[in-house]
Order: sequence, then C-alpha cells, then structure tokens
Amino acid sequence: MSGLFITFEGGEGAGKTTVLHRVKEQLEQEGLSVIATREPGGSVIAEKVREIILDPAHTEMDIRTEALLYAAARRQHLIETVIPQLNQGGIVLCDRFIDSSLVYQGVARGIGVDEVLQLNLFATEGMMPSLTLYFDIAPEKGLSRIAEHKGREFNRLDQESLSFHHQVRKAYHDLQQKEPERIHTINASERLEQVIENTLQEIRVVMKKKTT
Amino acid sequence: MSGLFITFEGGEGAGKTTVLHRVKEQLEQEGLSVIATREPGGSVIAEKVREIILDPAHTEMDIRTEALLYAAARRQHLIETVIPQLNQGGIVLCDRFIDSSLVYQGVARGIGVDEVLQLNLFATEGMMPSLTLYFDIAPEKGLSRIAEHKGREFNRLDQESLSFHHQVRKAYHDLQQKEPERIHTINASERLEQVIENTLQEIRVVMKKKTT
Repeated sequence: MSGLFITFEGGEGAGKTTVLHRVKEQLEQEGLSVIATREPGGSVIAEKVREIILDPAHTEMDIRTEALLYAAARRQHLIETVIPQLNQGGIVLCDRFIDSSLVYQGVARGIGVDEVLQLNLFATEGMMPSLTLYFDIAPEKGLSRIAEHKGREFNRLDQESLSFHHQVRKAYHDLQQKEPERIHTINASERLEQVIENTLQEIRVVMKKKTT
Repeated sequence: MSGLFITFEGGEGAGKTTVLHRVKEQLEQEGLSVIATREPGGSVIAEKVREIILDPAHTEMDIRTEALLYAAARRQHLIETVIPQLNQGGIVLCDRFIDSSLVYQGVARGIGVDEVLQLNLFATEGMMPSLTLYFDIAPEKGLSRIAEHKGREFNRLDQESLSFHHQVRKAYHDLQQKEPERIHTINASERLEQVIENTLQEIRVVMKKKTT
C-alpha cells in the first residue's frame, strides 16, 4: 500500500468533519487524489450497520453489541473503501477509526481498552493509520456548537451526559500520551481557518516523510 | 441463572428448526416455560443485524465483517432474550449459537476457530449452553430437502457450493469430538417423529441432571 491513511478523531462538536472536508478540497486543488470517508459507514453494508448503531429508538443496545457493530462497520469500510484507495497511492481522510472505539466503548462505556483493542485487531488485522489528528475542545464548547448548528441531525450519542464527554476527552488525552508518534493534537477551539491551516501543516509533514 | 439453555445446531436442511418448534410444543404441554428463538435474531436490534447478514444483495460482505455481525446479533439476543428467560427458571431452545460461528466463519470461511472463539467470548462473556444438539445429515440429503420445501425463503448461505456444506459437516463432527459432554449428535436422517422423540429424550436427561 503506497497511499496515506489519516484519521480524524475527537469529541462531539470539535468541528473535525468540517475541517476534514475543507482539507480535502485544498489537497485536491493541489492535484492529489483524496477521499473523505467516515466511521461507521463509507460503504453500502457499513452504512446499514451505522443506521442500526445511531438509531435513537435502539435504547436496548448493549455496550458490547455496540462495540461489535462498530468493529463490523470498520472492517467492511476498510475492505471496500480505505484499502483500494491506498493501493492506488491516494490519500484517505477518515472521520473516526479505531481510537473512537477505544475511547467510547473501551473507556467511557467501561468495557476496557484492552478488550476493545483485541476486538478491533480482529477487524483490522493490525492495520493502523499513518497519522491520527485529535481535535481537542472543551466538551462544554463542543456541545454548545452542536446546539447552535441547527442543520445537524441529533443522534443517540448527543443524549449522553456532560460527564460522559469529559471522560471521552480524558481518554483521548491518555491515548495521545501512549502513542505520541501517531496521534497529534489539534487545538479545535481556535477559529476555523486556523484549525484548517494547522491540520494541513500536520498532513504535509507526514507526506514529506513518506516521500523522502 | 436457574433455567436451561439448549442450542440446536446443524447444516442446511437438517430439519432442526421444525424439530425445535415441535419439541417446544411438547414441553409446553407438560407445563414448562419454554421459548424458541434463533440466531442471528431474536430481538429487534438482532433481527436488523440478521437482515444485513442474510441479504442476498450483499455480495461484498467480507468474512470478518460477517463474523462480527453474527457476534453482535448473538450478544444482543443473549442480553434481551436468553438471559431474562433463564433468570426466570425457563427453558431456552435456541436455533444456532456459538458453534455455528466456529463452524461457518472459523472453519468453512477459513478465519480460524481460535480467532472466532476469542471474538465470541467477547460477545458472550464466556457463557455456554448446558446442552447442544447437533442435527447430523448428509449435505446432499439436506440440500434436496430445502429444494423440495417451496415455502422456505432462499438465502445467501444456500448459494454456497456442496463442498462448503461438506466442510461444515466435518467441522461440526470435530467440535463434537472436542466437547462430547456438551455436544450430542442427533441422527437427522431418520423420520421426523423419531428425530423429535430422540431430541426430547436428550433434553429430559439434562433436565433430570439439573434437578438432582
């Protein structure tokens, strides 16, 4: 695989999805082959799994079922979307990947990071991103952004309590400390244009490393 | 948990589903609380996962995705359907469980029994049936039964080749040899009334053990 696999991570309302699409446009203007995709989803089967996970009516969803469904969507998305693009030497910008499961299911839901990691290694057969960008923002600020942004659909995760979102942030910080080479933090509370610029900067460093 | 968890296993066309429902009727006539359920499925969320797995249009389904989806359906089904009934002291007759994954995904699809077992232990947290009945029949006979039975829906698994079904049978035989205490073989090529009688006999032995 000669391409570049970059994942975007963060809590709710960090703006990572907006940044991801703006970064994609910029890189494409520079003549690069880039796909923007998201987790869970990114293929017909994975999108159907996504619907089951995010349906607000599914209040009976067990936490281990949720972890298994995320892993299933991840696997299918990797096979159908990510790997083919990487094989063609392109860039994949992926909205959430394995770290989301470690943080949400492993820590915040309490299954345990190691158990969720083992499960996900079954799904990915060990494949990891070249670079993971963590968009860091205080939960209060992230959630208020969501509330202001009327167009965004309200999903099951938004219903969680504020303490849940604080746990999520701490878990991302812990992961970043464990894997500082792979996971880089972006300050997502800066103004949008600055966040985009910082993100592009990080990606260019990895692209340069890859070509030298 | 004071109830009795019994799983029915076997290849396509072994008649296990017909036998399961007849056995349920008989046990209910004897005043017992019995539920008949199936894998994957048995709850709203698990049935939705089942739809994704069995949709003949999903030809892009990766084998690991399939294994993860079966494990997700299994987990949810266990939590919502099986465990509540067992907690009330009832009998659960379950059409397919963990052995189906070991056989279909682990052996026939080639992921490996150990990897699929680890995945499923994540889903079940180690819970196993008190008794597993394996309905054994030659694949040629099982498949011809399906062809005759016009009312039955044709699904993705039926499209597999005969050699696949022979692999499935051998894998069930190997599992039975590994766990002779838990897995008992029922000769499913006998006439229906005899198969039902033999099945009831096996269940009564386990019920007797449980109460003594």
